[in-house]
Amino acid sequence: MSHSTIALALHGGAGTILRETMTPELQAQYQLGLQTALDAGYAILEAGGSAIDAVAATVSSLEDCPLFNAGRGSVFNHIGEHEMDAAIMAGNNLACGAVAGIQGVRNPVQLARAVMEETEHVLLIGQGAQTFAQTQDFPLQPASYFFTQQRFDQWQQALQEGRVQLDHTEKKFGTVGAVALDIRGDLAAATSTGGMTNKQFGRVGDSPIIGAGTWAANDTCAISCTGHGELFIKAAVAHDIHCLMSYKGLSLQEASDLVVLEKLVKIGGEGGLVAVDAQGNISMPFNSDGMYRACKSSGREAQVLIYK
Amino acid sequence: MSHSTIALALHGGAGTILRETMTPELQAQYQLGLQTALDAGYAILEAGGSAIDAVAATVSSLEDCPLFNAGRGSVFNHIGEHEMDAAIMAGNNLACGAVAGIQGVRNPVQLARAVMEETEHVLLIGQGAQTFAQTQDFPLQPASYFFTQQRFDQWQQALQEGRVQLDHTEKKFGTVGAVALDIRGDLAAATSTGGMTNKQFGRVGDSPIIGAGTWAANDTCAISCTGHGELFIKAAVAHDIHCLMSYKGLSLQEASDLVVLEKLVKIGGEGGLVAVDAQGNISMPFNSDGMYRACKSSGREAQVLIYK
Repeated sequence: MSHSTIALALHGGAGTILRETMTPELQAQYQLGLQTALDAGYAILEAGGSAIDAVAATVSSLEDCPLFNAGRGSVFNHIGEHEMDAAIMAGNNLACGAVAGIQGVRNPVQLARAVMEETEHVLLIGQGAQTFAQTQDFPLQPASYFFTQQRFDQWQQALQEGRVQLDHTEKKFGTVGAVALDIRGDLAAATSTGGMTNKQFGRVGDSPIIGAGTWAANDTCAISCTGHGELFIKAAVAHDIHCLMSYKGLSLQEASDLVVLEKLVKIGGEGGLVAVDAQGNISMPFNSDGMYRACKSSGREAQVLIYK
Repeated sequence: MSHSTIALALHGGAGTILRETMTPELQAQYQLGLQTALDAGYAILEAGGSAIDAVAATVSSLEDCPLFNAGRGSVFNHIGEHEMDAAIMAGNNLACGAVAGIQGVRNPVQLARAVMEETEHVLLIGQGAQTFAQTQDFPLQPASYFFTQQRFDQWQQALQEGRVQLDHTEKKFGTVGAVALDIRGDLAAATSTGGMTNKQFGRVGDSPIIGAGTWAANDTCAISCTGHGELFIKAAVAHDIHCLMSYKGLSLQEASDLVVLEKLVKIGGEGGLVAVDAQGNISMPFNSDGMYRACKSSGREAQVLIYK
């Protein structure tokens, strides 16, 4: 079986993203951020690199862009800090790593990768994960690195209104993620998030939960989700799509549409996901107004999309 | 459809539990601990109580018993503290709650239940979850409450040998859990653990991960796992059994045996689980030498078992 096909898909969050409320300048900035991340990962795949390297590079690029709620652009929590979660998974051996509730790390996805590659563990959380980052020589960024006026204003507004927000003043689920198929036929997925504006109590959503927000298995698909995390956990979204393909023989498109457009809708689970299968088919369903997304695969034009 | 059947199954951990290394006195203590927990939950079911109440009572009883690695009997982490994880899930509406990396709470399963019932969230971690416990008036226990000489000695030994242990001096996966079917046909599952002796870096296993160590859905089954958590996460054990029943039509026994005795064995994932389906069938497969376990259902004698 030839595996000459390569494919990459990414998202930068889903939610109430409407053409009416977007300025041309801001839209161009989002498109540039998505394109830059797409190019970073796709170049690796084109050069024969691994799917894991590609999703790590793509997600790192999105984490470095202050527009997206992950890494640098992470929202403020209740006490004015940035708590981030991330996960990564390799489809060839189900190796996976995740971190939750970490602070100061520029690229949480790379810390998740270090958990996968340098430890016997899958999930490290909080202060302990922080200590691990230091043993791995991850430089910690000062709080100023994560400061953006927009996020600060959102936090102040949420504080005043006593709200916990899923990203922006509108209903947006800020998360970034990527999935890839490399030239060897290996799949990989990665997801990263800054969580909810004004969040309290160490809340963690689906992003770092293997099987909920992130999943990759070579025999089925790689998936990265974005949406109302609690409902994505209850629906075990990523692993459910894997099982629908593996046990019911559904195609990637059928399985991901069923979960996102029917099962999640039924429980009020707003959001979407990006997915790729072993043949390089890409699926990017969402049940919200919009989802920042982009994809490219062998022989096809790159797509950079925001609205329905 | 009549739902007169009730059923409860519980575990107190799996691993290298051998008759040869057990004293009659210790065995009697374990049996008493298991029987007490079984009675606590079954009495609730017999009185027409809910599956959620039953699993919470059973797991709380196991958490209060210093023999098991959860609650009071939790192992020491690398810095001599006790970090605990727990989850609970209701099969009738997929409501779920979980906590990870918490300290000082007598019954982590009850804190997980408070997350499920009193918040919009599923998973709270670390210091944040601690703060949440205080807002819910959970009294925090002093470190002395969690002190047991045996766990302290295990920690000291592990420290000296530079090992991270999955419970005892032998290879044991200390976790407790319960599953139940109530008279209304509702299923529930709960799991609680003190993690690994000498663990570092805020490591979290499968216990608090919905879909990995804990799962309940009325149309299929309720499951609580115990074992090498990292591999149970990779295999999405609990949700995989749900999908094998839902999508392939396997029985509870077939699905749980396939996952525990074949799929987990293939990836070196030692451990087991307890499971119950909507008809009150109970399955308690494990691929280790032993698993502390007990069960009782309508019209059947109670079973309290340790070895193969």
